[in-house]
Amino acid sequence: MTSNNQYEVFIKMVLSNWELQNTRLNELLNKLSDKQLTSETAPGRNTGIYLLGHLIAVNDAVIPLLNLGNKLYPELYDMFVEQPDKSGQNFPPVSELKDYWKNVTETLRRYFNSMPMEEWFKRHMSVSEVDFAKEPHRNKLNIVINRTNHQSYHLGQMAYLEKK
Amino acid sequence: MTSNNQYEVFIKMVLSNWELQNTRLNELLNKLSDKQLTSETAPGRNTGIYLLGHLIAVNDAVIPLLNLGNKLYPELYDMFVEQPDKSGQNFPPVSELKDYWKNVTETLRRYFNSMPMEEWFKRHMSVSEVDFAKEPHRNKLNIVINRTNHQSYHLGQMAYLEKK
Repeated sequence: MTSNNQYEVFIKMVLSNWELQNTRLNELLNKLSDKQLTSETAPGRNTGIYLLGHLIAVNDAVIPLLNLGNKLYPELYDMFVEQPDKSGQNFPPVSELKDYWKNVTETLRRYFNSMPMEEWFKRHMSVSEVDFAKEPHRNKLNIVINRTNHQSYHLGQMAYLEKK
Repeated sequence: MTSNNQYEVFIKMVLSNWELQNTRLNELLNKLSDKQLTSETAPGRNTGIYLLGHLIAVNDAVIPLLNLGNKLYPELYDMFVEQPDKSGQNFPPVSELKDYWKNVTETLRRYFNSMPMEEWFKRHMSVSEVDFAKEPHRNKLNIVINRTNHQSYHLGQMAYLEKK
């Protein structure tokens, strides 16, 4: 196995799991009505629309974290990450949020697919050079593993929006 | 970066995310009473105890899938994977299931930590040699990435057992 092949296999492992979670969320979104999506995932818990906004904002923040560019929707971070659900905010309409979701997903895919292989194993923007020297696993690809788990966590909750 | 270092960093990335999810589930289990754990995660949805049994059974099945040995609790697979919740089955008591969970987690940790590095990049038991030649990312380490996401998904649901 050459060194380049190893990189390629690693990256493929991580990105294929990332894409799988995106596919699953898209499949769920296609099945849910706007009314279902704006409902609570369980009594007293986050609404589907808040969780969708939360995933958009958290995934959008991956762009600067990997030093790939600026966030597409910086205004969503306060609304869906800093502020809790049901705090009197006016969320964008469902159709707009779905467009944002699609745009963030496709933008990340483009960035990810054009990233030079060795770049994935460099440090991300929230770990210092000193810490990275000691913990080289805290690289850019690790962010994708972490965010894939984050998305799975909330997907499990959003699945409760579907009719039984 | 030497080839061995690359393997090491990559394995560390995957296993540290796996351990993180185990830690989070353990923290949740420590906070939940037996009564909470046997409740539904949302009205009409799976109970906490079913999801705990489900995670034990699915993670236990990783042992033979990675060719590491036999399942510790083969009888749980039918109960918590093949059969749905609330199908009239008698589940083991919570305290016993918690012991099984601990034992599966620790057994996998021992196996994982003693696996030779290159072994992680060999095929797992449910992909054929022919398919693996075409898709070398379908290796043993990929199973851990996938099962980490699976656990995150259900952890998001089990988090709803906690009092608000």
